[in-house]
Formats: sequence, C-alpha cells, structure tokens
Amino acid sequence: MIKVGIVGATGYGGVELVRLLKRHPQVELAYLTSETYAGQRMEQVYPHLRGVTAQLRPLDPEELAAEAEFIFLALPSGQAMQLVPRLLARGKRVIDLSTDHRLRDAAAYPRWYGIEHPHPELLVEAIYGLPELHRAEMRDARLVAAPGCYPSGAVLALAPLVSAGKVESQRMIVDSKSGVSGAGRTALELAYHYPEANENIFAYKVASHRHTPEMEQELSLLAGSAVTVTFSPHLTPLTRGIATAAYAELSAVATAADLIEEMRRFYFREPFIQVLDETTYPHTKATAGWNLCQVTARVDERTGIAIALSALDNLGKGLSGACVQCFNVMHGFDEDTAISEPGPYP
Amino acid sequence: MIKVGIVGATGYGGVELVRLLKRHPQVELAYLTSETYAGQRMEQVYPHLRGVTAQLRPLDPEELAAEAEFIFLALPSGQAMQLVPRLLARGKRVIDLSTDHRLRDAAAYPRWYGIEHPHPELLVEAIYGLPELHRAEMRDARLVAAPGCYPSGAVLALAPLVSAGKVESQRMIVDSKSGVSGAGRTALELAYHYPEANENIFAYKVASHRHTPEMEQELSLLAGSAVTVTFSPHLTPLTRGIATAAYAELSAVATAADLIEEMRRFYFREPFIQVLDETTYPHTKATAGWNLCQVTARVDERTGIAIALSALDNLGKGLSGACVQCFNVMHGFDEDTAISEPGPYP
Amino acid sequence: MIKVGIVGATGYGGVELVRLLKRHPQVELAYLTSETYAGQRMEQVYPHLRGVTAQLRPLDPEELAAEAEFIFLALPSGQAMQLVPRLLARGKRVIDLSTDHRLRDAAAYPRWYGIEHPHPELLVEAIYGLPELHRAEMRDARLVAAPGCYPSGAVLALAPLVSAGKVESQRMIVDSKSGVSGAGRTALELAYHYPEANENIFAYKVASHRHTPEMEQELSLLAGSAVTVTFSPHLTPLTRGIATAAYAELSAVATAADLIEEMRRFYFREPFIQVLDETTYPHTKATAGWNLCQVTARVDERTGIAIALSALDNLGKGLSGACVQCFNVMHGFDEDTAISEPGPYP
Amino acid sequence: MIKVGIVGATGYGGVELVRLLKRHPQVELAYLTSETYAGQRMEQVYPHLRGVTAQLRPLDPEELAAEAEFIFLALPSGQAMQLVPRLLARGKRVIDLSTDHRLRDAAAYPRWYGIEHPHPELLVEAIYGLPELHRAEMRDARLVAAPGCYPSGAVLALAPLVSAGKVESQRMIVDSKSGVSGAGRTALELAYHYPEANENIFAYKVASHRHTPEMEQELSLLAGSAVTVTFSPHLTPLTRGIATAAYAELSAVATAADLIEEMRRFYFREPFIQVLDETTYPHTKATAGWNLCQVTARVDERTGIAIALSALDNLGKGLSGACVQCFNVMHGFDEDTAISEPGPYP
Repeated sequence: MIKVGIVGATGYGGVELVRLLKRHPQVELAYLTSETYAGQRMEQVYPHLRGVTAQLRPLDPEELAAEAEFIFLALPSGQAMQLVPRLLARGKRVIDLSTDHRLRDAAAYPRWYGIEHPHPELLVEAIYGLPELHRAEMRDARLVAAPGCYPSGAVLALAPLVSAGKVESQRMIVDSKSGVSGAGRTALELAYHYPEANENIFAYKVASHRHTPEMEQELSLLAGSAVTVTFSPHLTPLTRGIATAAYAELSAVATAADLIEEMRRFYFREPFIQVLDETTYPHTKATAGWNLCQVTARVDERTGIAIALSALDNLGKGLSGACVQCFNVMHGFDEDTAISEPGPYP
Repeated sequence: MIKVGIVGATGYGGVELVRLLKRHPQVELAYLTSETYAGQRMEQVYPHLRGVTAQLRPLDPEELAAEAEFIFLALPSGQAMQLVPRLLARGKRVIDLSTDHRLRDAAAYPRWYGIEHPHPELLVEAIYGLPELHRAEMRDARLVAAPGCYPSGAVLALAPLVSAGKVESQRMIVDSKSGVSGAGRTALELAYHYPEANENIFAYKVASHRHTPEMEQELSLLAGSAVTVTFSPHLTPLTRGIATAAYAELSAVATAADLIEEMRRFYFREPFIQVLDETTYPHTKATAGWNLCQVTARVDERTGIAIALSALDNLGKGLSGACVQCFNVMHGFDEDTAISEPGPYP
Repeated sequence: MIKVGIVGATGYGGVELVRLLKRHPQVELAYLTSETYAGQRMEQVYPHLRGVTAQLRPLDPEELAAEAEFIFLALPSGQAMQLVPRLLARGKRVIDLSTDHRLRDAAAYPRWYGIEHPHPELLVEAIYGLPELHRAEMRDARLVAAPGCYPSGAVLALAPLVSAGKVESQRMIVDSKSGVSGAGRTALELAYHYPEANENIFAYKVASHRHTPEMEQELSLLAGSAVTVTFSPHLTPLTRGIATAAYAELSAVATAADLIEEMRRFYFREPFIQVLDETTYPHTKATAGWNLCQVTARVDERTGIAIALSALDNLGKGLSGACVQCFNVMHGFDEDTAISEPGPYP
Repeated sequence: MIKVGIVGATGYGGVELVRLLKRHPQVELAYLTSETYAGQRMEQVYPHLRGVTAQLRPLDPEELAAEAEFIFLALPSGQAMQLVPRLLARGKRVIDLSTDHRLRDAAAYPRWYGIEHPHPELLVEAIYGLPELHRAEMRDARLVAAPGCYPSGAVLALAPLVSAGKVESQRMIVDSKSGVSGAGRTALELAYHYPEANENIFAYKVASHRHTPEMEQELSLLAGSAVTVTFSPHLTPLTRGIATAAYAELSAVATAADLIEEMRRFYFREPFIQVLDETTYPHTKATAGWNLCQVTARVDERTGIAIALSALDNLGKGLSGACVQCFNVMHGFDEDTAISEPGPYP
C-alpha cells in the first residue's frame, strides 16, 4: 500500500482524485489537505464520498512529508514550485497538477505566467504527464507535471499527424470549447455564475491563454522543429468536457482515412485513446466521468487543411484521470488500475 | 398595412417571425400555413402567442397568392424553388428562408445540395439577405434569400477585414458553435434528444456543411477573388446562439486595434452590428432573443493570424430577425421597426 | 414623460426594468444607480442595452429626489425601509422591489426577517403589487410593494379557488421550482456556481423561507380567515422560470373543469393571466422573457385534493414585468404598455 | 460466472446495466438484445463501452433461455408479461424493469395501465425490488420487479415515517421533479427535443401518473392500512436525477430531528441510503451516476406537516443500479458488488 497525500483535496481536481484513488487497491489515502475545510472529514464536505473519513488538514509540509510517500499537488500556480523541492529532498515522488513544472524552458515562466521560476533544474527533470508521449521517461521520474486540460486535447489530437510529418507544423490553429468546471470550484466569478454561464458561449483570452506554450513545447518535440500555436479557448454551458478542433496545413495530399490510419498506428494499444473512423465524431459525453480521449481527423480537400478533432473530460483525461494513469506508470501497475470504468451515459 | 403570408408558421423560424411581425405596425398577418397544425389557431399551438387568432392552413399556393402581398417562405430546402416562380408571377414579393436561392451559381446546387435548380434565372435575381452587404440592391428586390445562420455569423465577422484587404482571403478557417434550435423544431433526431444533446459538444459535417458555399460566395464578392473556407460546425448545449471564430492570415502587420477600427468603419451606423473593443468578447447571451450581431477581432502577433469573432442568435440575426430587417429595407420602413428591442437578460 | 429613477439598476431586476422601461413611451430613464458600476454608462455594463447612455451613479437620496418623480427601489432588504419615508416626504411615488413593505403586520418583520420595521404606518399604507388582487387600491397609491417571485406564482394559482371557497384554506402546501436568476446577480455563492447548479435539483429552506408570510397574508385576505402555508422552494437548473404546484383540500366535490371555470371567471379580462384547460399544463418556457402567468388546476378525485398549478418568469411577472404593470396602473396607462410582447420561443 | 442476458440492452436502462455488470466479477454478459441495433456490437453503438464486443441480437426467447441463466428484461410495458412465464418455466431467474410485475393486485392493471394481466399468479410471486423493504423475500425469488424511478424516491423518503406511524398515512402528497432521461432513449417526442426541454419546467399527468399505485402499494404494506397518494411529476432540465418532496400530516408532535432519527434507525446499515441531518438537503448531483438515495425530513411546526425529501439518479438507484443491487441480493453476493463507487462530481 502506498501512502498517498493530496494537497488541495477539495477542489474539483482533488475530489476527483480522491474518488478514483479510493478504489485503487494499492493506495492508502493518508494525508488530505484543505485550507477551506480543515478540520472536517472529506465525507462531510462531499456527502457522496461516504466512507472517506480522513480528516482534512491545513497544509503542513513537514507533516505531509512524514505521512505520505507519494504526493499529488493540486495547488494554485506559483505555490507548487515552492513546495516541490522540499518534498523531493525528503525522497518523495510528486505529481504536480499546476502549471509550475510543465515547461522545460525557464524563460517561458516570466513570459507566460509572469513569474520567475526558482528551480529551473527541476523543469529539466520534470516529465510532462502524457504517458502517450513520455511513458518510458515517466517510470522512474521523481516529478511529473500533469498536463493542462486544453493541451491534453490539442496535443493528443495533433501528435500523430505532427510526428509523422503529415502536416506543416510551423503554424497551427487550435480552437477549443470547454465546460465550466475547468475554472475550478472556488472561482466564484460572475462569468461562472449559473445565470451568466448558462445559455452562453464566448471566446476568451484568444491568442494569449497560458496553456499555449505547453502545446507548443510538446508539438515541437514531436515535430523536431519549432511549432507555433494560435489558441482560442471558449467557455460553453456544460459542466465537464472539452472539444477541440485543430487546423493545420497538409504537407502532402492525404485523405481523412490516411490521417486516421496514422492515428491508429500512433495510438496502437494505448488504453485511453479511442481513434474514431470517418463516420463518427468525438463527443464529450462519451468521455465524461472517465479517462478517455476520443480523436479523429478530417481533410478539407479543397483547401488542403487537415482538421484533427478530440474530446475529453477536463476533469478526467484532462486532469485527475490522467494523474492516476501517470501514477500507475510510475509504479509499474496496470495502467488502467482504478480508471478502467467508463463514466455514466447519458 | 401589408398583408403578409408565412408559409411554415409553426417551425422555430416561423413562430419567431410571427412574434416579431405581430408587433409590426405595417403588417397584417393574413395567411399562416402549417401542415402539422392545420385547422388550429396559432395561439392554440403556441399558447404564449395569445391573440394571434389566425387559423393555420395547409399550404394552397392559389389561396396564398390571393390573400397575401408579401410572403415569407419557411419551407424545407427544395420546396421553395418550386413555389417562388408562381408567387413572383403573381406579383408577390418574397423572402425565402431556405437555401433555395442563396447561391448565384446554379452549378453549386447539385454539388452542395444534391439537386438541380429549376430556375437559375432567379438565382441571379435573388438578393442575399444581409442588409450590411446588399442594402441598396434589396430595396426593390422581388426575391430575397435569407442567409443561413452560420454564414451570417462568419461573413459579418470577416467582411470588414476581407473588404479592406487586411487578411489573405484565398483560404480561411471558420469554427462555429451553435445551439440546438438551429436544427429546427421537427427534427426529432436522437442527437437532439435532450439527454443526448445536454452536457455534450461535438463537431459534425466538418469541411462538408452545406452552409459553406454561402460563406465563400459572399466573401469572394468582398475580396474580389475566390475565397475558400474550411468550415467546422459544432453542436453545443444551449437553445439559441452561435459563436464563431474565423481565422485568416494577416496580409500585413496589424494589431487587434487596427482590425477593430476597420470593423467600426465598415459597420458605421449599422443598427444591428455591435463592434466590441479589445477588452470585450462577443457573448451569445447578449444577442439572444433579438437581431444583434456582436463582432470583434484579435491578432496573434506571433503567428500573424487574425481572429475575427462574432456572436448572434441563430433565430434572431441568424434568421427571423434578419428577415424582418430585410422586409423593412424592402419597404423603406425604419430598419429597426419591430426589431429594436433587446432580448431578455440573463 | 415621467422622470423615472431606478435604484439598483444593474442587478437582474434592475436591468430587466431598464429594458422594459426603455420602450415605454411615457418614461424617461432619469436616474440610474449602481454602487458596483458607478461612473460607467449602462450600455457599458450591459452591451446589449446599446443606447442607454445614462451614467450610473452611487445612490444619493437628495439627488434622486431632485431628479426623479417616480422611483423603483431594487435594494437589498432592510435598506428600502430607510429610504422610502424620505422619498414619500418629497412627494415621490415608489415601487419597492424588496421585502420591506410587503407585509401589513409589523410584528411579522422581526419574526420572518429578523428586523424591526421602523415605519409600521407605511406597512398599512403600502399596496401589495398584484394588480389582479389590488388594482383599485393601487391607482392612487404612493407606495407599492412588488410581490416576491414565489408568492406571485403561488397566490395567482390559488387565489380563484380560495376566493370562491372551493378549497379548505386553513392549511395549504406550496411546492415551487425556481431558476437560478432568482438568487440575483451578485450572489456569487457556491450553490450558484455553474458546475454546482447545473444538473442539480434540491430543496432549500423548507417550511422556513421568507416568502411564506406573503403568501399567507394574501390568501388570508381572500379567504377571510387565517391561511397557513407549508412552503418548499427548490433550485432547478434553468436561468428563468418558476413552476408551482399548490395543494389544498377541496371543500366540496369538484372536477378540474369546475376549478378551471372558477379561474376563468376570476381572471376574466386579466391581461397577463392565461388560464389553461384540462389538456394543457403551465410551462415556464411559455412565460420566459415577459409578464405572463399561466395557471390551471387538477383534481385528485381519489383523495379530494385540488392541485393549482402555475408558471411564470421570476424576472418577468415574478418581478420586473409586474413592476411595470403596477406602474401603468398607478398612472392610468394601458396596463400592457411596454410589456405586451411575448418573449422569444424557444 | 453467471451467464446474464439483457433484453433491451441499448436503451438507457440497458446501457447502464451493461456498464455496471461489465465490472461485476461474477457476471458474464452472455446475451444482449436490441431490435434497433441488431447485428452490431455493443461497443459500436456506444463507443465508450469499448471492449463490450458482444453482438446485439433481436430477441429470440428460445435462444435467450438457452444462453442465459439470469435475465434482465428492459422491455416496454406489456411485453415482459408475455415473456416471463416462458423464462421461469425454463428455470431462469428474472428481474423485470417494466411495470409488468410491480403490482400485487391484478385488478390494478386494467385500471392504471389499461391492460389485463395474463398471469395474476406471478403478481403474487414477484418481489418488489427495493431491498430496503424486501431483502429477505428477494433472496430466493425467481422474479423481481424493479421499482419505478419515481416510486423509489417517494417510498424511500416516506417508508421510515409511515412504518413508525409518525405520519397519518391515509392521504399523502408526493411532488417529484425528474430529469429527462427518465423518458427513455427512443422517446423522440417534441417535449424531449432539446430546445423544448431546456429552460423549461412543467408538471404532467398530475394525479394520474402510472407510478402512483406502486407508491400506494408499498406504503400501504408499511402502514398496515390503505394509503392514497396524490402524485405530481414534473419534467426539469437535467439529464439524470429525481428530487422528491413528500407531504404528510404528523400523527403526533415531532421535530425534524425526531423524524431524521427515525430514518437513521430504519436505514441502519443500509449501504445505499444516506440519511442527511437538519442542516443538509438531498442534492441530485450527489447521487448522479450511482446507486445512492439521499433522504432527510423537515417539519412545519406551524401546520403539523412533515416533509420527507429524497434525491436519487433515475438511472442509478432509480433503475439500473437498483437492479444490480437486487441481483446481488438474489445471489448472496456482497450487496455493493459492482455498484460501490460514487459517480463523478460535479
């Protein structure tokens, strides 16, 4: 049994982690923190998590290091980068859910997040948490950076095409539509107030969203040259789900079937990627509540544009599900332990 | 008072037309047809339209021509093209809500709609119903083709930039997100069944949607050369609203402010276009229930991509509101007669 | 032209009032207050209210009294009771949207709202703003108390049956289901956060909601004896709308048709009440965006229970629409001025 | 391994059964029928059920009896009553999801369902599928009738109070609010078309819904005397979930705490009933996607009315989850096998 600590257990990412890890046969939920609900038991805050009697505590790094072997950090950006070195120094392994260790290039931190990274050496060490791209490096990693929900959808859709050189990769366009839970539980802003978010769609942070450099980093690694992404996120009225359409120029004539075939090859035996054929489109509903990403591709023969499409649950394969998948890889467990079950439908 | 006929008065387009024209001081609702509800009064089918006591009749072209001077045709595609010549021959003026008279090029009909157009001469005569682009030609038109809801959003977003040569126009990408009412009232398909459509987003008919040639026609007219559009529509869980993001390459360095300035110039004094500045994004909620289209633009300076954004109500500026606007232009009425009031918020 | 002031113009009640009064031919929007947005123009805060260029000001009672003749107060409970006496003393007429003047019995204030009313004499003077019950008294009133959204639905459903003695009125049960906009715009609480409110239904404040005494007061007046109401409100995932089912024991054998006939008699010529027959049920969607209340009744012959049903829009006939209706009555205008148009459907 | 057959595997009840039984360690999905999708594999119809490769077949009773030991019948009402005797005669055990075997009184069938029951002897034999009330009888049953979704919510809320004589039970009122998936997958009616169901609440079949006699039967058994229920169902805009408020007269003075204490006693050690205290209300969101029913109670001290409240998922504890629970009881398995995990939140 691995003693697991979750820092930030009552946010949406945290509560989904608890739900998944609770059924993991190798996990003991040893240390759960919450600043807001410190002193209560998890099942008091979330009545549906009956039986999770662990008491929520305010974060105490010493206590955390003493009681947990493996730690999930679901902290606001800027905080994990302070805590991780202390945990690693104590021999812990860590999955960080924030943006704090996703970019290898320290110079990107001030540019995109407005903050200087205090430990650039950890940026080189940290593994980006997409097992589909970094499984081997992840096995012995001390530190894994869970990907952003938008980048997961965009990179998983584009990776096979970029990797195989099917598309021109200097310049790509990613248009994503996200449910509101991506904003988190405590972000009680007007835009997420039900009467404002319901029956509303709108773009935001077009060409300036902080998830952009992650996409560029991972696609550039695959392309072997610099990829630039124009990224437009949209808020849409559903709780969970991200649908992504990514546009790139074909590097040579190809059909949708060709691209889908490439996707099948790339994701051969991947347990959590479902490649759909030319008659079916990714639906967020099919991925809601679990760790699946659906992908497919289309071609506009008239313009030579390839369209890579994906759907995932921003709290599933887009966050907490992916974290458990990485956790399994890091321990050599069956990769689908605790995350094999599809979510409810409809 | 103009005696107005509405063919297909109980579909979503029809019922919204009735609601708007009911308050129009120059309109008498003289002839309303419905195959499904023939024999009932409009207010029986839609209890909230109390006082619309006109009896619904099955379509009888002779009767229609005898009793109405001006006719709105909300018929399935392929039917209006049969009826329009008879109505014009009787001296009627017509607004056709279907795809039957939107394309000038008769050759596009078999290619995009799988049907040979029986009256190509009317395609040359028909005016595309965007007053923002065709106001002058519309005044004396006998036949106006109401635009599709998707093309309205895409063309209104891109028109100023294409017209001013701010973007390379050979190849553009349009990514739209639509509410479900765009599918109509009688399309009782599984995809629109509440439990399937709710909490779901998905692309469909990517690079093959029948609204594509409309966009290309209107943008090509503005560009003075052939524009090709890669179009990806998405179904999203709201009743009314379309948000569109259109991507095109800048033809020269420009900022968002430059593009927005161009939009302001292009839409100067347009009563139903609202150009938003760099701090605000189009929200479908702000346009729901009336004839407004919000537009703005952004620039990705790193890639030289311009992003033109719009929001409208697919049954408002995207359909019935636009029809009333065209009707007003065709009669020299104040253009906002019966459509000046914003919809309820939130 | 009547110079109108709206105190609290940017809350949901206020913005809907502005939207409606903007089209009122006898109204000049002379003074709009907002603490949050003071200094901005209304159209900046709500882009869809283009043309409402009035600048928002922080509330200054002297200024208000100097610039407005008629005042709508959309203030939090407890604040209007301070302001109203000053305005009346200056000869103003007032409609108060809060709970501050709805109950005639001063003793009810500490009991239900936890506050002592400083001006019990105004409670006797204030008219409860349901024209269907108090039209005559309202004409010359200085002070009208707009009803709560829940009481409007419950009282309008039950009034005909209680008034005619069709039901035993000592003890009634009211079960209401409300959209989230009833909670207001600034109540950024977790329960109204989109991911929490969406796909969720729950009861709250069962048998203790502060709207209960209003229902009892109005029904008691109609019954001529004390009515007690057990009231259960529910939050449901829609933006606008309240559906109410009210249960009472029949006082003598009666059919649904009998009760509906009684409703028709009671609401004969009422412009904003629609009595539905035995084949149709009230639908919130039919009332959304305007000042309609649909009512009907059913009977459980096996138990002798009458069920009175209603639907309305909590921001329409449940608040701002009703305010304009009262305003029209108070001035002898056509009662449907500015509020005659049905909302968009669907 | 028990060879299980599911007749009607592609409706919402069926697909949820497949999802749950797929993870059941003692179950082999041996025979899945679908008239609509016969010939396809389950995973083709529902892409998220990857790995369920069983081919869907049109129902063939002989084949079914030959290949399955235990059978779930998710057939329209009226069809199961034809099939069940043949299956029992072949030694099979059956859970019937329809209304066909829920009522013990054969005379109720023509009255409530308009159909004469051909096998009244099976009505006496069949066990009503609420383990909380009939666990002991269920163990050796050949035939279990899964309860309706509405009755599950109403009976589970009221059972403790009725059983302990805390409320007068002759006459009760049940007001329920249901999500749209309760209408099934193939019921493509206008009322469930997304644009109609969204942003809409309405009552239907008030005092005449076919789930009423189930409630009365079970509550009468508990009361030891005839209970009559006035039942008002409502359609609300969410996919999954039923919230129920049940009203009954207290038989003696009692507080909410008293009633809740009674609930705790009654449901002591029940794995799928969660009794909430006076500070918390049942939320459908907490029960979505799994087999939980939350209950609590309140008292209106002024009127002596008890309000029993519940929330459940109409496809979870309201249908497929409950079926698996019964299945476990019928085999002596741990009652939470395959249904212990909470659904995703939010």
